[in-house]
Amino acid sequence: MIRVIKIGGAVVDSEEQLSAVLDCVVRSADPVILVHGGGRLATQLAEQLGLPQTMINGRRVTDEATLRIATMVYAGWINKSIVAKLQARGINAIGLSGADGDLIRSKRRDPEPVDFGYVGDPIAVNATLLRELAGEPAGELPGNVSFRAKRGTMVIAPISHDGNGTLLNTNADTIATEVAMALAPDVSLTFAFDHAGVLRDVNDPSSLITKLSRAEADQLVVEGVITSGMMPKLENAFRAAERGVKHVRVARYDALDEEGGTWIV
Amino acid sequence: MIRVIKIGGAVVDSEEQLSAVLDCVVRSADPVILVHGGGRLATQLAEQLGLPQTMINGRRVTDEATLRIATMVYAGWINKSIVAKLQARGINAIGLSGADGDLIRSKRRDPEPVDFGYVGDPIAVNATLLRELAGEPAGELPGNVSFRAKRGTMVIAPISHDGNGTLLNTNADTIATEVAMALAPDVSLTFAFDHAGVLRDVNDPSSLITKLSRAEADQLVVEGVITSGMMPKLENAFRAAERGVKHVRVARYDALDEEGGTWIV
Repeated sequence: MIRVIKIGGAVVDSEEQLSAVLDCVVRSADPVILVHGGGRLATQLAEQLGLPQTMINGRRVTDEATLRIATMVYAGWINKSIVAKLQARGINAIGLSGADGDLIRSKRRDPEPVDFGYVGDPIAVNATLLRELAGEPAGELPGNVSFRAKRGTMVIAPISHDGNGTLLNTNADTIATEVAMALAPDVSLTFAFDHAGVLRDVNDPSSLITKLSRAEADQLVVEGVITSGMMPKLENAFRAAERGVKHVRVARYDALDEEGGTWIV
Repeated sequence: MIRVIKIGGAVVDSEEQLSAVLDCVVRSADPVILVHGGGRLATQLAEQLGLPQTMINGRRVTDEATLRIATMVYAGWINKSIVAKLQARGINAIGLSGADGDLIRSKRRDPEPVDFGYVGDPIAVNATLLRELAGEPAGELPGNVSFRAKRGTMVIAPISHDGNGTLLNTNADTIATEVAMALAPDVSLTFAFDHAGVLRDVNDPSSLITKLSRAEADQLVVEGVITSGMMPKLENAFRAAERGVKHVRVARYDALDEEGGTWIV
């Protein structure tokens, strides 16, 4: 069963957290599709270049210069650095953006009511390519043993394309969700971050909610236990579970081998 | 027969020249592996960031910051922009660096006599992956029709890796040569640039040398007809021909469909 693991910018920015995730990928008996977010580097680069960043309702507008930076940082430096680190661990990973192999085709987001610029929402995933590179079904294809034998791990950057030659900045949580849904039902989806899962008390790891339904989550939002920052991630998680992804959970970056975390039911 | 086409930085920098090459890729009946150089963007970015560039004997030293820029620009922006442009032309291209799929493993160049920093010379090419993605041998592999049907064009950035987690800046001519040699003998290699080929008189296109052996080239260097800038490219071309690459030539970017250019014999 293919495992889709999403790591956020904070994990990418931390050498220790990223190493923990990559070590988990090495131990995985199943093929892994690692979807990574951006981290601080793109913001730093924009600042160093003196590019003004426009924020609307706390969200960044991706103008042409920002799209270029996002593509350079996400699909270039971060993606290839992760691939090289996996290669050093004996995992023959391949790094992809959504343009490669027409992997993730997106529609540029409507400029109304707010124009966020070169931002896309996925409309199609090339599941055939994902399955081929993951080596599933194993053993059926002749040749290419050296590549497949190492389980064809993929590393996906949060950049997609519109099919008309334009790259689009795309939310990594959404990409991970769409990729998992395209591979449903025999696929798992894990959102890795730096908490044990969804906690009743963010300062108390023992308050972990081990199972969470959409109805329970809605209630926890009303109670103020689940914050606004957590909800978009959970929205993606519920959508994946409702669309047939077998296992969906939110878990700590260093506990991906285990059964821990918050499971979406 | 797979076609390896190398395009230099000048072609990448020119929208018109790049379009001419990509239109040729569309018309090609054979799978194409496009290897691209860097262009001016990396230098511009280094300047904008105020990074001092160290040159030794006219060649740039790739320190850590420069490696990051090279990876961002070559494997990020340029590579993905070319892939997106091919997708817009209906070609399901996939962009790769040398780290992806362990495609090009390099040895960091000796720091003696001159330390050029994070620069690598290829020592191994994953020909199995190239052949698989190119869809050769056609028709033998089940599944994945949607991808293979579009001929699995590849776009390769001039970044490789050392197998120990470090990315390395790598000459694009050399990458194209090594890729072609790994696929020999049924492969062609074309160095595309903005002249009709090797010219006796650089200002006179009718002075094209249509066939060129190593002995003739050596003589033309003595005569001053072939310049120092042309020789490294021709060195790669002769090496490829001597190592069994069936067709090797230097040709104009807009004449890749034709039999023109200077053929290496």
